[in-house]
Amino acid sequence: MSSLPESSAIPVDGFRFAGLSAGIKRNGNPDLALAVADEPAVIAGVLTTNIVRAAPVLVTAERLARGKARAVLANSGCANACTGAPGLEATHKTTSAIAQALGAREDEVFPASTGVIGALLPSEKILTKAPELVAALSPNGGERFAEAIMTTDRAPKLAHVRGEIGGRPFSMMGIAKGAGMIHPSMAPALPHATMLAFLFTDAAASPRALERALARAADETFNSASVDGDTSTNDTLLALASGRAGTAPGGDELPPALYEAILAVSESLARQMVADGEGSQHLVELHVSGTESDAEARMVARTIATSPLVKTAIFGKDPNWGRILAAAGRAGVRFDPDRASIRIGEVTIVERGMSIGSEAERRAHEIMTGPSFRIDVTLGQGPGRGRYLMCDLGIDYVRCNADYRS
Amino acid sequence: MSSLPESSAIPVDGFRFAGLSAGIKRNGNPDLALAVADEPAVIAGVLTTNIVRAAPVLVTAERLARGKARAVLANSGCANACTGAPGLEATHKTTSAIAQALGAREDEVFPASTGVIGALLPSEKILTKAPELVAALSPNGGERFAEAIMTTDRAPKLAHVRGEIGGRPFSMMGIAKGAGMIHPSMAPALPHATMLAFLFTDAAASPRALERALARAADETFNSASVDGDTSTNDTLLALASGRAGTAPGGDELPPALYEAILAVSESLARQMVADGEGSQHLVELHVSGTESDAEARMVARTIATSPLVKTAIFGKDPNWGRILAAAGRAGVRFDPDRASIRIGEVTIVERGMSIGSEAERRAHEIMTGPSFRIDVTLGQGPGRGRYLMCDLGIDYVRCNADYRS
Repeated sequence: MSSLPESSAIPVDGFRFAGLSAGIKRNGNPDLALAVADEPAVIAGVLTTNIVRAAPVLVTAERLARGKARAVLANSGCANACTGAPGLEATHKTTSAIAQALGAREDEVFPASTGVIGALLPSEKILTKAPELVAALSPNGGERFAEAIMTTDRAPKLAHVRGEIGGRPFSMMGIAKGAGMIHPSMAPALPHATMLAFLFTDAAASPRALERALARAADETFNSASVDGDTSTNDTLLALASGRAGTAPGGDELPPALYEAILAVSESLARQMVADGEGSQHLVELHVSGTESDAEARMVARTIATSPLVKTAIFGKDPNWGRILAAAGRAGVRFDPDRASIRIGEVTIVERGMSIGSEAERRAHEIMTGPSFRIDVTLGQGPGRGRYLMCDLGIDYVRCNADYRS
Repeated sequence: MSSLPESSAIPVDGFRFAGLSAGIKRNGNPDLALAVADEPAVIAGVLTTNIVRAAPVLVTAERLARGKARAVLANSGCANACTGAPGLEATHKTTSAIAQALGAREDEVFPASTGVIGALLPSEKILTKAPELVAALSPNGGERFAEAIMTTDRAPKLAHVRGEIGGRPFSMMGIAKGAGMIHPSMAPALPHATMLAFLFTDAAASPRALERALARAADETFNSASVDGDTSTNDTLLALASGRAGTAPGGDELPPALYEAILAVSESLARQMVADGEGSQHLVELHVSGTESDAEARMVARTIATSPLVKTAIFGKDPNWGRILAAAGRAGVRFDPDRASIRIGEVTIVERGMSIGSEAERRAHEIMTGPSFRIDVTLGQGPGRGRYLMCDLGIDYVRCNADYRS
């Protein structure tokens, strides 16, 4: 990449964006978003692994098989999950209307929804607004798209990078939402969904290589990020490539620069999501190493990252390493606690399974007052490594989720 | 049983109890408890499966092999976990002092600790108080024992039943503590610990039969109870049988009436623990059925019972069935969401995967204002059944755990 990712919108050749309020949300905030490719773009996606899959996820899963997209139609305020046949019908109606307005095939319009589970998508409201939405499309509409997919998010989530493939410049913009029910577990062609993320690039790519790269990048970023451990019914990650930059598409493997761009934009969006975790005040990058395998390291990291006791300790800026070690100990991974060490930022607080002392904990507490820091847990059994992005569990998380529907 | 369990202390023939303040807790509350068998009693135990095991758990695990007990020495205010060789030495010193005072073998004194992880047991404070503790022993000291093992508990936890074996009456009293870091996962002779529970009976039992029965009862009760999903480093469940009632010990199987008593007392203590979950206001008995196997039902129940989104919805008295179904969907168990139904109390709110409507939800909300209710999730795939005792996740849970050490 010729740049680090920045958290803002840019135009990406071949795409236009729009967002507006269709009255799906009670509060009148923007809730309907559309991204359109001027010509059919290559598309790949990874979707929630939750058994319970929302209607738009079922439809998107089916349409991904062809690998071609003209549009992404996303809404907030209603997940259209657990809505049975009427839910599927509502999703079909809305993508059909957009296809008609664009002169596109219906199966090239990809739906995504987020919001309350169990409520039927109000398709009439969307149909009424479709002409206005299409008329509002603009290369500079990324920010408005991002705003229209927000639910409990405190801020829109955008990231872009620029890179080069064989001397030709390309751009990529990512747009995401997600602040709660965040613990994505996405697999190619298997549906999942309250994290929505869309990547748009003017680079060229083959559908298969794009899908593999997207799955790999998701595993490194979104699937290693947790706000509350709850994998949603609607999690959707889509990547669209217009090819307008005229870069070489590569063969079975994506050009490395393009993979790096996907990874960088995904990492930026995943961090923005966890940092914006409902009520959270601290973004923690948790690194676990010294297990026998990477899979074991990830199991330990996942258990620590989702432990309510660890998360509330982080909210309290308390370097409560006993809770970290106790969480590691119940992860189902064999290790010798007497070899464990724990570091917060640069400060080692546990060595050989025992406390370094209160002065180290005081310094660790100082680090924990910051908005973001790193925790390292080393178990001394082997070469395994794993990482998780996590956040604290604070009073506002409870407030936010206890009041959500009332 | 000739009675339902009651939540109070009774004398149990062959045992005496005491509790006092040894200054382990900063606030001066009772923190040291002793139970003594007049003659060596049969003992069996199940201990935390956490890899990280506190010193008293290691010592208790070793001593359980002989199956004989004269005393249980328990303290709150310090878990003596992650304290290495000095921690083991401190535990040995204290049980040795009690053994000496009683004229018992040291390996017939069983230690248990609960409190902050990482702090070394202040053995001197315990040694100083040992004579006073022994002098205070009384058949009516159960309540004081219960008070001395409390940490964040709002109330002492006691239960007793009376029964008959072959026409001979027997008694059983259980004493427990535990309000946070509650998600026991105990197995025979495998250490685990912030739930402490001790059962005392004057019935006779063989050590092996008692251990098997205890493990089975623990699985049905304590191991299916969750406050926060965090399995502790110190969880300990011990059962002591004095045989003073002169009942037949049975052979490889415990007499059914004795097993029923263990189950009833364990169930009562487990319910008291979950109802007293840190900051919790609702005790929920969650029943999952209709999976292919019992193991699958339990996986689904466990995932729902530990979901922060479900738990905060319960705190908010919100019959948010979408979150329940979404949690079930990520449990790793195959089912068809279109066959799922959900009931809160007697009110069905979801049938065939879809909402019954807002009137049903309003009635479910009414039920959820109560201190305890039942949720049934039926998946329609097979005969599997599973149960979990769970509670809500409220603002006071966060307050309690963010401030614990500060």
